[in-house]
Amino acid sequence: MTQSSEPSIAVLFHSGYGHTAAVAQHVANGAGAGARLVTIDAEGNLTDEDWQALDAADAIVFGAPTYMGNVSWQFKKVADATSGRWMAGAWKDKIFGGFTNSASPSGDKQVSLIAMQTLASQHGGIWISLGIPPANQKASSHDDLNHLGGSVGAMIRSPADAAVEEIFTGDLATAETYGRRIADFAERLRPAA
Amino acid sequence: MTQSSEPSIAVLFHSGYGHTAAVAQHVANGAGAGARLVTIDAEGNLTDEDWQALDAADAIVFGAPTYMGNVSWQFKKVADATSGRWMAGAWKDKIFGGFTNSASPSGDKQVSLIAMQTLASQHGGIWISLGIPPANQKASSHDDLNHLGGSVGAMIRSPADAAVEEIFTGDLATAETYGRRIADFAERLRPAA
Amino acid sequence: MTQSSEPSIAVLFHSGYGHTAAVAQHVANGAGAGARLVTIDAEGNLTDEDWQALDAADAIVFGAPTYMGNVSWQFKKVADATSGRWMAGAWKDKIFGGFTNSASPSGDKQVSLIAMQTLASQHGGIWISLGIPPANQKASSHDDLNHLGGSVGAMIRSPADAAVEEIFTGDLATAETYGRRIADFAERLRPAA
Amino acid sequence: MTQSSEPSIAVLFHSGYGHTAAVAQHVANGAGAGARLVTIDAEGNLTDEDWQALDAADAIVFGAPTYMGNVSWQFKKVADATSGRWMAGAWKDKIFGGFTNSASPSGDKQVSLIAMQTLASQHGGIWISLGIPPANQKASSHDDLNHLGGSVGAMIRSPADAAVEEIFTGDLATAETYGRRIADFAERLRPAA
Repeated sequence: MTQSSEPSIAVLFHSGYGHTAAVAQHVANGAGAGARLVTIDAEGNLTDEDWQALDAADAIVFGAPTYMGNVSWQFKKVADATSGRWMAGAWKDKIFGGFTNSASPSGDKQVSLIAMQTLASQHGGIWISLGIPPANQKASSHDDLNHLGGSVGAMIRSPADAAVEEIFTGDLATAETYGRRIADFAERLRPAA
Repeated sequence: MTQSSEPSIAVLFHSGYGHTAAVAQHVANGAGAGARLVTIDAEGNLTDEDWQALDAADAIVFGAPTYMGNVSWQFKKVADATSGRWMAGAWKDKIFGGFTNSASPSGDKQVSLIAMQTLASQHGGIWISLGIPPANQKASSHDDLNHLGGSVGAMIRSPADAAVEEIFTGDLATAETYGRRIADFAERLRPAA
Repeated sequence: MTQSSEPSIAVLFHSGYGHTAAVAQHVANGAGAGARLVTIDAEGNLTDEDWQALDAADAIVFGAPTYMGNVSWQFKKVADATSGRWMAGAWKDKIFGGFTNSASPSGDKQVSLIAMQTLASQHGGIWISLGIPPANQKASSHDDLNHLGGSVGAMIRSPADAAVEEIFTGDLATAETYGRRIADFAERLRPAA
Repeated sequence: MTQSSEPSIAVLFHSGYGHTAAVAQHVANGAGAGARLVTIDAEGNLTDEDWQALDAADAIVFGAPTYMGNVSWQFKKVADATSGRWMAGAWKDKIFGGFTNSASPSGDKQVSLIAMQTLASQHGGIWISLGIPPANQKASSHDDLNHLGGSVGAMIRSPADAAVEEIFTGDLATAETYGRRIADFAERLRPAA
C-alpha cells in the first residue's frame, strides 16, 4: 500500500431506507480526505472495486441497521463473504469501528455492535471504541453528542416515523466525531513510510 | 413446595442509590400477592432466609444497575454464590426474567441483560422476555411503556441527576407490566397440585 | 390451532454443508412426533408452507452455523423476514430454543446463541435453555453430552475437516436431548384443549 | 509517563484457584520486560500502588475466571471501582485485551470477554483481538495455539479436576503469544518520546 497523505478509511455499510447511509456519510466526513463509502446493495453484494477498497483500507468502519436484534442480513452476507480473507489473515491488524441505527433508543443495538466487534476480532483486528462520554443528565437531548450512551461504537436512533432529514443532530455529530477518531488512530498505527 | 393461591416470585436485586429498588418494587407490584423482594446488601450478601425464598420461588426476577457496562459487582457476588445450586441443579427449570437501570438510554444495559440471561441458562432456566412492543415514534416519550425499546428484559433509564422520585412513569409501568407477565407464566408452568 | 396429541415443534435451520442439517434432524428426533424440519435454502428463503408451519408451531428451534462470529446470513435473512410478524405480535409467547455449529470448540458460537435468544425476545418469546450439565472433567470426551459446556442452547463442534458422518456422538445426543426438553416445555405451556 | 525502553503492560487479574494466575504470568512473560502483574485479592481489592500501576500502564490486559457465565465478582468489583477514572476520562485511548479461564471448552467464556471488551470501550479504549488462527482440525489438540477457537481474547480451559500444573501447553502458549501481541501494539501506539 502506498503511503498517501491521509490514512484510508472505508465506511462499509448497508442501509435499508437511507438513514444508515446518511450516518455513514457523516462518519466519512469526520474521517477526512482518505475516507470512502463502500455501499452494500439490497442483495448483500459488493463490486470488485469495493473489495479492493476494503483490502487497501487502513481502517474499516462497519455500519448497518439493527433489524430484529442484529445487523441486517445484507451486512451479514458481506461478513460471510470475507471468510476467504479471514482464512488468509488478509485483514489481520486492520483497524475497525462500527455504528448501527434503529428506531428505539436501545432496540437491541448493542447486539449488532457486539456482532461487528466480534467480526473485527475474527479478522485479528483492532477495535476503536466510541470515546465520547454519554450525555445522560435530565437536561440532555438528542442534540447532544452520544445522547444514547453507547461506548463500543456509535448508536444512532431514527424513530420509526422519522425521515432521513430528521436524524438527530446529536447523532450526526457523534458519527462525525467517531469518524475523526478512527482516522486519528489509523494515522498513528500506519507503518512508517 | 406447597401449592399456594399465587405463584411465588422473588425479585432479587441490588440497588446502589435506590433507583433499582424502586423499580424492583414495581416489578413486585405487578407480580402480585406471591411476590417478595430479596435485597442484596452493599457487600453483595443475602440472609439465609433470602436464600430459602429464592430456592422456594417459582420465578426469580434479576435486577441490578448497569455499572461500567455490566451488572453491579454485588449482584455478581450473589450470582457466584449460586454455584453450589448450579452444581446440584437445584434451580433447573425455574423461571427467570431481568431488569437493569442506568443513566443513559443505552449505557450498555444490554450486556447486563445478556449476563442475567446467561446466568439463568447456566441454571437450566426458562427466560421470559419483556413482551412489550417498543414506543419508538417521534411522539413517543418516557411516559410510554418500553420507551427504550428493550426486548430481553426491562430497561430502565434514570438520568445521572435524577432522584428516585423522578424515575419515568413509563419505566415504572414497564416494570409492573413485566412483573405481571412473569407471574402469569409462573402460574402456567406450575406443577399440578 | 387444533390441539393434537403432540406439541408442534418447528426446527428452523440453515445448513451450509450438511452438518447443521444433521444436527437439526437429531433435535427433531428428540422433539417427537410433532416435530418438523423447516429448511432455509441457500438464498435465505422459505416456502409459504414453511411460514405456515412456523406460525402454527408451539415452539421454534433456531439452528444455524456460526460463520464469522454470528449466525449465517441466510438464517439472518429469515430473521429479518419475520419483521411483519414482530410488528403484529404474531409470535408472542411462543417457545424458542437454538443451536449452532462451527469448527472450533468456541469459535464465537456464543454470539450466535445471543443473537438467536435476542431474536426470540424481540418476538416476545420464552427461551428454553439447554438444561444439560457440562462434561468438563479431564476424562470428558466429545462422546459426552454437552462436552463443550454450553448453557444458552446446544453448541455443536464439527472440525473443519470432518464429514457430516463424523459429527461427534455427544453432540448428536445433546441435540436430541435438547429437542425433547423443548417439546416437554411446549407440552406444559399449551393452552388447555 | 516517562518513556522507558519497553511499553508498560499491566496484567490485571483475579484468580480463584491459581489457574488464572498461571495464565496471567504467561501473558506477562509474553509482554516482556515492561509487564507487571496486578493481582485482585479475594475481596476484590487492589492496593494504591496497584492503581498507580494501572494508571501508568500503556496497556491493561484483563484476566478473570468465568463463573456462572460472567467474570468473577472480584474482577467486577475492580471494574466498578474504575468509575471515577471513567468519569474523568483517565484511561481514554489506553490499550486493552483480555483472557478468561473456565472448566468447559465454551462454558460461556464469551460473555466474560464481551464484558471485558465493553469495559474497555466504556473507558474509551482500544481493544487488541487475539490474532491467532484457531486450531480446528480433527487432529488438533490442546497443545495447539488457540485450540478453543477464541477471537476476541484468549480463552483458556482448565478441566474441573485439573491442577494448576495441568493447564494445557497450548493455552499457556496462546497466553504468551497474546501478551507479546499486546506489547507490540502498545509499542506502536506510544506517544513519541
